Amino acid sequence: MVVMGHASSQSENCVIIAGIGLIGGSIAAAVRKRFPGSSVIGVGRSADRLQKAQNAGLLTDWATEYSPELFSKRSVVVICLPVDMIADAVCTVAGMSTDDVLITDAGSVKQVICDAVRKNEDAESRFVGAHPIAGGENGGFEFADADLFQDRVCVVTGPEDSPGNCLKVERTVRFWSSIGCDVRFMSPADHDRVLALTSHLPHVMAAATMTSVGAQNLPLTGSGFRDVTRIAAGDAGLWQAILAGNRNHVIAAIEAAQQQLADFKNALQTQDDDQLEKLLAAAQQCRAAID
Amino acid sequence: MVVMGHASSQSENCVIIAGIGLIGGSIAAAVRKRFPGSSVIGVGRSADRLQKAQNAGLLTDWATEYSPELFSKRSVVVICLPVDMIADAVCTVAGMSTDDVLITDAGSVKQVICDAVRKNEDAESRFVGAHPIAGGENGGFEFADADLFQDRVCVVTGPEDSPGNCLKVERTVRFWSSIGCDVRFMSPADHDRVLALTSHLPHVMAAATMTSVGAQNLPLTGSGFRDVTRIAAGDAGLWQAILAGNRNHVIAAIEAAQQQLADFKNALQTQDDDQLEKLLAAAQQCRAAID
Repeated sequence: MVVMGHASSQSENCVIIAGIGLIGGSIAAAVRKRFPGSSVIGVGRSADRLQKAQNAGLLTDWATEYSPELFSKRSVVVICLPVDMIADAVCTVAGMSTDDVLITDAGSVKQVICDAVRKNEDAESRFVGAHPIAGGENGGFEFADADLFQDRVCVVTGPEDSPGNCLKVERTVRFWSSIGCDVRFMSPADHDRVLALTSHLPHVMAAATMTSVGAQNLPLTGSGFRDVTRIAAGDAGLWQAILAGNRNHVIAAIEAAQQQLADFKNALQTQDDDQLEKLLAAAQQCRAAID
Repeated sequence: MVVMGHASSQSENCVIIAGIGLIGGSIAAAVRKRFPGSSVIGVGRSADRLQKAQNAGLLTDWATEYSPELFSKRSVVVICLPVDMIADAVCTVAGMSTDDVLITDAGSVKQVICDAVRKNEDAESRFVGAHPIAGGENGGFEFADADLFQDRVCVVTGPEDSPGNCLKVERTVRFWSSIGCDVRFMSPADHDRVLALTSHLPHVMAAATMTSVGAQNLPLTGSGFRDVTRIAAGDAGLWQAILAGNRNHVIAAIEAAQQQLADFKNALQTQDDDQLEKLLAAAQQCRAAID
């Protein structure tokens, strides 16, 4: 993991965002706030939703279809769709766009997307994958936040060996840095392995806790339960695509957690209270160092 | 579970609190705020800490020893010690106190405490167990909050068949209600079974997630990870005593979570993405109903 540093200068005069939900809307808000002179164009399925996003000040224009006109001048295109729709969108946009269009994304998995993009020459030459580590359990541009990315890590990956890679990656780093991100470079495989632990496993653990507790016991829950389960309220369809898109690393992460639970259960069953305290102390020490 | 309703009238002129940490300190703050004329006496090991708590306005007086003088007049004594120290403290206080002293506690487990208290006649006649479901991962009276218990459920249990039980339980309900609690009545066994799921399991899940992720991956964590693992920062010694004090129910709760994780892993391994989405949707639906 290489730290690429911050930058705050304007790098793009035109930003086109496919998918105006929480992330796409927050990118739009961040660009509009920092660079009021830039064009921010939203692309989505619903004209009604896009018009509402424009009325909310997030977009300068919008379209419900990809078209060569849309991608005829220098711009950065950010694909903010569910992870299982990103690669197709990259290929579609790449096939319609001129050479100085840069395509990036905000997907929570990277290997499957980068692998699919590599198979398409136009897409490979224009795309650098990214993942800004920010979000929330509430979807929709109504929750968009111009400061959502401020000081948040954004992992930039890419097909590393493609021609012109350096300039393209540099431009991608500048874009994400310009909206506040702390950009780091990782390979798609390293990204997916680490995010399986830091993001995908916590989602599974939150969901497993919620279902184990059950609705009938909610009156006797407190703030600890609410914290642990909060992200389980995230959209099931989006998360199914994320977990399935990082299948093997998520399985390995679940196995690590299963080992932890087995250790807790074993310490309780054998009445090994020293071991029980050691397990708790290891987690306490690590967690206390964060906030 | 029987809902006992709210009350806000003053019920006690003298409240004696053993253990002035987050919970004991917050009870003190709540009584001082709502009933400024009441005596609030702290009992603890450290004269220095107790004097600081008095200087902070939490206590009207303090003592470092239990003594018959301390328990010679009508008062409610609230034991806010680690769960493995509560039963002994109840017996010690009961042996020194007059008949119109009520002893209650704030422990997160109830069966082992109620069982131990039943073996001591004085203790059994004066004690009604309770558990206000409120807290935080930061210990110490410095984090005390007079409104920590406002509208929070407090489970009141007790040795149900002891003589004079009704008046004693009624007085206990009045006390916890007077500092804002929503009091509900449960048997110690029911309390421990449900809290194993709603409180003790989330702690284990938070700790298991934290240890699985590991310190080396912290730079790539986001707000979801921080939510899921927050309570893992809780004191390992206190939580060891809680988990060990509710051993069999916690084992059963861990087994429920292990089944959930096995279901997630199986859905991923068999590429059954419909089942994966079903597991996520069940948790999402349940969690979305809370906030």
